[in-house]
Amino acid sequence: MTTTGVAARVSTVDLLGWTTEVFHALGLPPGRARASAAALCHGDLTGLTSHGLANLTRLYLPLFQDGRADPAAEPVVLTDLGAAALVDARRALGLWQATEAMDNAVDRARTHGIGLVSVRGATHFGCAGHHTALAARHGMIGLLAGNCGGQRIAPPPGGTVAMLGTNPLSVAAPAGAGHPFVLDMSTTVVPTGRIRAAARAGESIPPGWLSDVDGNPVTDPAAFDRGEAQLRWLGGDPETGGYKGFGLGLVVEVLGALVSGAGNGPSRDAYSGDRGRDDDIGYAAIAIAPGALRHGKSFQRQSAEVFGALLDCPSTSESGVRYPGWHEGERAASHLRDGVPIPPALHAELNEVAELLGIGRL
Amino acid sequence: MTTTGVAARVSTVDLLGWTTEVFHALGLPPGRARASAAALCHGDLTGLTSHGLANLTRLYLPLFQDGRADPAAEPVVLTDLGAAALVDARRALGLWQATEAMDNAVDRARTHGIGLVSVRGATHFGCAGHHTALAARHGMIGLLAGNCGGQRIAPPPGGTVAMLGTNPLSVAAPAGAGHPFVLDMSTTVVPTGRIRAAARAGESIPPGWLSDVDGNPVTDPAAFDRGEAQLRWLGGDPETGGYKGFGLGLVVEVLGALVSGAGNGPSRDAYSGDRGRDDDIGYAAIAIAPGALRHGKSFQRQSAEVFGALLDCPSTSESGVRYPGWHEGERAASHLRDGVPIPPALHAELNEVAELLGIGRL
Repeated sequence: MTTTGVAARVSTVDLLGWTTEVFHALGLPPGRARASAAALCHGDLTGLTSHGLANLTRLYLPLFQDGRADPAAEPVVLTDLGAAALVDARRALGLWQATEAMDNAVDRARTHGIGLVSVRGATHFGCAGHHTALAARHGMIGLLAGNCGGQRIAPPPGGTVAMLGTNPLSVAAPAGAGHPFVLDMSTTVVPTGRIRAAARAGESIPPGWLSDVDGNPVTDPAAFDRGEAQLRWLGGDPETGGYKGFGLGLVVEVLGALVSGAGNGPSRDAYSGDRGRDDDIGYAAIAIAPGALRHGKSFQRQSAEVFGALLDCPSTSESGVRYPGWHEGERAASHLRDGVPIPPALHAELNEVAELLGIGRL
Repeated sequence: MTTTGVAARVSTVDLLGWTTEVFHALGLPPGRARASAAALCHGDLTGLTSHGLANLTRLYLPLFQDGRADPAAEPVVLTDLGAAALVDARRALGLWQATEAMDNAVDRARTHGIGLVSVRGATHFGCAGHHTALAARHGMIGLLAGNCGGQRIAPPPGGTVAMLGTNPLSVAAPAGAGHPFVLDMSTTVVPTGRIRAAARAGESIPPGWLSDVDGNPVTDPAAFDRGEAQLRWLGGDPETGGYKGFGLGLVVEVLGALVSGAGNGPSRDAYSGDRGRDDDIGYAAIAIAPGALRHGKSFQRQSAEVFGALLDCPSTSESGVRYPGWHEGERAASHLRDGVPIPPALHAELNEVAELLGIGRL
């Protein structure tokens, strides 16, 4: 309850309950408020704090205030082909709506082996890995690829104006008895949240995240919002695969925006330096059910073998070999036991929200 | 016909015709021989020569000689759920069989919006982008993710033994009137072919492709086959996204091997340094039909806008901004006009194959 000192520890149950109240107070029906809370708190639970409750005042409250997200929206199914469907989310809050889309893809995959829910008119869905991990819990593979609507953040290699968003991509799969495999990545080297967090903290960033217009490394994170540095693609320079990162960003744009007809980043409007806005986001939620195609038990055995062999891999480092999703799973387990650390400044900020909405303090 | 001097120019028709004869002489029925020739010559036509006819004597002839590929194999459909199917390729030559799988996924997507053909027991399919580009020609998005069977080439971050193959991933999509978008990438920084080509040519390689066991850059490509250097993942060091490249390699392993039940790289057998073999390859061929979900014309218009805006993007470089697949499309067009350059040493090598098989010279 103080703004300085050590982080408060809040139980997972209390954190989810309080955040559900927030979304309910904002006008979401109870089930959707609960799903939204689970998606937002996923960031705090797993240690991906740049996508957690810190985004409540920075991102989600303004979305509702500006009418860019509609708490009462009812998404509409525009096309239903059994295995695949096209949905207009109509500005529904992405935090719950992406969970619903992934659940729906899982249902389709159970019957058809693969399921696709293609969504336009969407808003921010938080951590992509929260939604894909749901598919893994059903013994399936989940894939979520979402563009940033009309928002443009990073230029193509050789280009001088931003054309694409950070275009996140997540794939999750069961990994035997261990934490599920969850890859959750921006197709740029890092998401913008990492740059801005460093700028707020007054820290420099490693070479390779930003470059100036001539391609030289920039280590001052504040240069990004001053318009003096460009965010780089995964792979970095052309000879180490920068075109692959750019290509993966385009894959997400194709799967997210072109399949659904959502807003797209690359446009001639960009030539004037217009960076667009992250409205009309498009994404693809895909589930694949190995258990429908082959014997489910043998799939589980093989995935346990693959991920188990990786965890026990001979290593030069004391922390050993881990796969994406493992550390997040460990953190969630320890936070469930010991409470979720909420830094004092964030705690104060959230209690201001509580006061504003007339709900109890966290 | 000489082994020194300038490259011969062979017409595309002659090159495809001659290569078809090769595969026919090796025991493939005419249609399959033709599809195999198209897939193999794709490398030479588009300039991806490390995956072209140079692989005939290095890779495909030995596969048949050792009985690791079966020219007379009849793949079997093990499960058919309409939108998705599981196929055992039974060591059929991947060059034609991956084309057939992608064509089949396209047919499924036409009805169901999305189609998946999951394949086990497969062999080398050449350039992944050749097969995904077929889907783009049908106005669809094609995705091909194939592991390397039981072969292990690159260690996980922090690991001391190889666990995964170079695990290629390709996605293609129509791009309006221009060449289709075709991303075709290894999930390691480069495929092993690029390392070995540099070693054969006695050239050094850029820092970032190989590292020693302590993580220091290695620029001598021959160190790789001496076992003194490790191939790195896309993204390089941890702070510039090396875990993402490793994660993408795992995504390909999951989609390729775990969905189908093919051979997998990560295994406790690897701890002794056993690098396995690229038998029982698994891959997923996925097609998505935007035209079945939304109005086909509006999809085409939007993809023309997106890729057209990228091609005209303001640029600092004289060659401008290009998307993956564009240069390959240009090269194929110019080779169609002027003939495909076949270097003297390769030409001689191919004519030795002709003599061996009792067919006409190239």
